Amino acid sequence: MSDKTALLALDWGTSALRAWRVAADGTVLERRREPWGILSLPEGGYPAAFDAITEGWRADGIPALACGMVGSRKGWQEVEYLSLPLDLHRLAGSLAAVPCSAGVLHLVPGLLDEARPDVMRGEETEAVGVLDALGHPAGEILLVMPGTHSKWVRVSDRVIASFATFMTGELFALLCRHSILGQGVPVGDGGAEARPARDEAFRDGVRAAASDGLAGRLFSTRALMLTGRLPAALVPDYLPGLLIGEELLRADEGGPAPDRVVLVGDAALTGRYALAFETLGRPAPMEVEAASVRGLYRIALAAALLPTFAGDAAC
Amino acid sequence: MSDKTALLALDWGTSALRAWRVAADGTVLERRREPWGILSLPEGGYPAAFDAITEGWRADGIPALACGMVGSRKGWQEVEYLSLPLDLHRLAGSLAAVPCSAGVLHLVPGLLDEARPDVMRGEETEAVGVLDALGHPAGEILLVMPGTHSKWVRVSDRVIASFATFMTGELFALLCRHSILGQGVPVGDGGAEARPARDEAFRDGVRAAASDGLAGRLFSTRALMLTGRLPAALVPDYLPGLLIGEELLRADEGGPAPDRVVLVGDAALTGRYALAFETLGRPAPMEVEAASVRGLYRIALAAALLPTFAGDAAC
Repeated sequence: MSDKTALLALDWGTSALRAWRVAADGTVLERRREPWGILSLPEGGYPAAFDAITEGWRADGIPALACGMVGSRKGWQEVEYLSLPLDLHRLAGSLAAVPCSAGVLHLVPGLLDEARPDVMRGEETEAVGVLDALGHPAGEILLVMPGTHSKWVRVSDRVIASFATFMTGELFALLCRHSILGQGVPVGDGGAEARPARDEAFRDGVRAAASDGLAGRLFSTRALMLTGRLPAALVPDYLPGLLIGEELLRADEGGPAPDRVVLVGDAALTGRYALAFETLGRPAPMEVEAASVRGLYRIALAAALLPTFAGDAAC
Repeated sequence: MSDKTALLALDWGTSALRAWRVAADGTVLERRREPWGILSLPEGGYPAAFDAITEGWRADGIPALACGMVGSRKGWQEVEYLSLPLDLHRLAGSLAAVPCSAGVLHLVPGLLDEARPDVMRGEETEAVGVLDALGHPAGEILLVMPGTHSKWVRVSDRVIASFATFMTGELFALLCRHSILGQGVPVGDGGAEARPARDEAFRDGVRAAASDGLAGRLFSTRALMLTGRLPAALVPDYLPGLLIGEELLRADEGGPAPDRVVLVGDAALTGRYALAFETLGRPAPMEVEAASVRGLYRIALAAALLPTFAGDAAC
């Protein structure tokens, strides 16, 4: 292991830009984060943001690779969506490139699932990282990636077969801020209520979604509050129960039963999903941290962006 | 028939106040409407609004009856919810009263369906009006009342047996104004697009909801736009298709098949629902205009607020 930079890896999303200096064996040597998502770039736009976040890291011959919304229509350069099914080699063979102070910045394409249709940019790289962390397992793997736009990704023998987006996080924020369901609800994290009461309110929401569906029970949030059966401070627990419950029920329809369900992300979010699985009587999913840097490194290796010996060492 | 006032009837909702001067036989002699919903009262509050909208109509012994949010916690006086099942006589026997310049203003209570739970204020009166217009039919009647908060009301042998609220109108407004799905969508009524294209986009939305559910297909709106398969100007047609499609699918689950499905409301709204029924291959529902004044008159008769001869004439 050396502390020599072999890859500049960037996850460039809507609201944040993260960068890592990575060694030839995949070790993260340094990390940085700025609020320079594609909707909040600093003066000078993309080139200036890239220069600032890789300041002192750049050197001749060191490749740079980015994933996320940086490749969208509003990004640095639009990169076409790749169709499914998709394996790592086609993904790594389809990188785009935009000139920059490091020579070129390679961009990971987004994916298009024609069937729904559905699109993603960034999660494909997280998926590659997770599969790498799991040792590239064969069989049917279902990756559940909670967030503003949750992604459910079906991987079949190491190939991304299909995926679906659920706007769970965005819907929750909208409903709290702008709908009648948020009226009279205290703003905050519900910290005033005890954890068991919060978990039970969440479970009630999951069960309500399971019995009549989200659309048929959304207004029950209001009715429970008006009739005094749900304290206003627990609405921020009941409502995610409804939304996540619906997500689990709808995402799981059709398709072969997965050999493994993997929850990807920070414990704060995945904990709620794990509780929803339990409430619906389903087996507990495995939980892993998201690691887009691991996916970026794996894609860079497959694309032969790194010196060959590094690739050999890691394969 | 006479032009003598026998009843002052008010439908007092969240955003509007409507009033009718009604003769003893139920004929509407005069109507008024003001934007004085309970969230936008004029100076002087409820008494001033009541006086202004009934100006010149009031006289000794003329009863006044109001339905809607005026009886809610934020209304003139809170009126408890009545439980189900509920017939016209219990509803009429449970009126509340608040002192006013006309003596008292009688208030129609709201309803509570314990099962979900769910609540309504105002639609129970519309339901009474519709059932009266249909001649108080026996059997299973399903009233579909589209709106900001659509209500699906099950009537079983003239008794309100259950109901469910769908936040379809509010969700559509939220998603257009505040979510990523509204980004890049022209504001307006889609008038620039031809009607057949708009109807087809709406039908596509209904079919998408039928195949994967609203939650699993909501983001398809964005994916269709990004991939050029749905013109931005047709998002305001596709999205209601998804929402109304989900509403029809979820509202119809469980319960005995109704003998009659009745769509209640203005043609602008019910037309879309009729198209959704057709797209899902269901029989066309009967369509009737909403008439809360007819419901108010019928409740006033049953509550013996009007002189007896009027009651006899109308029964």
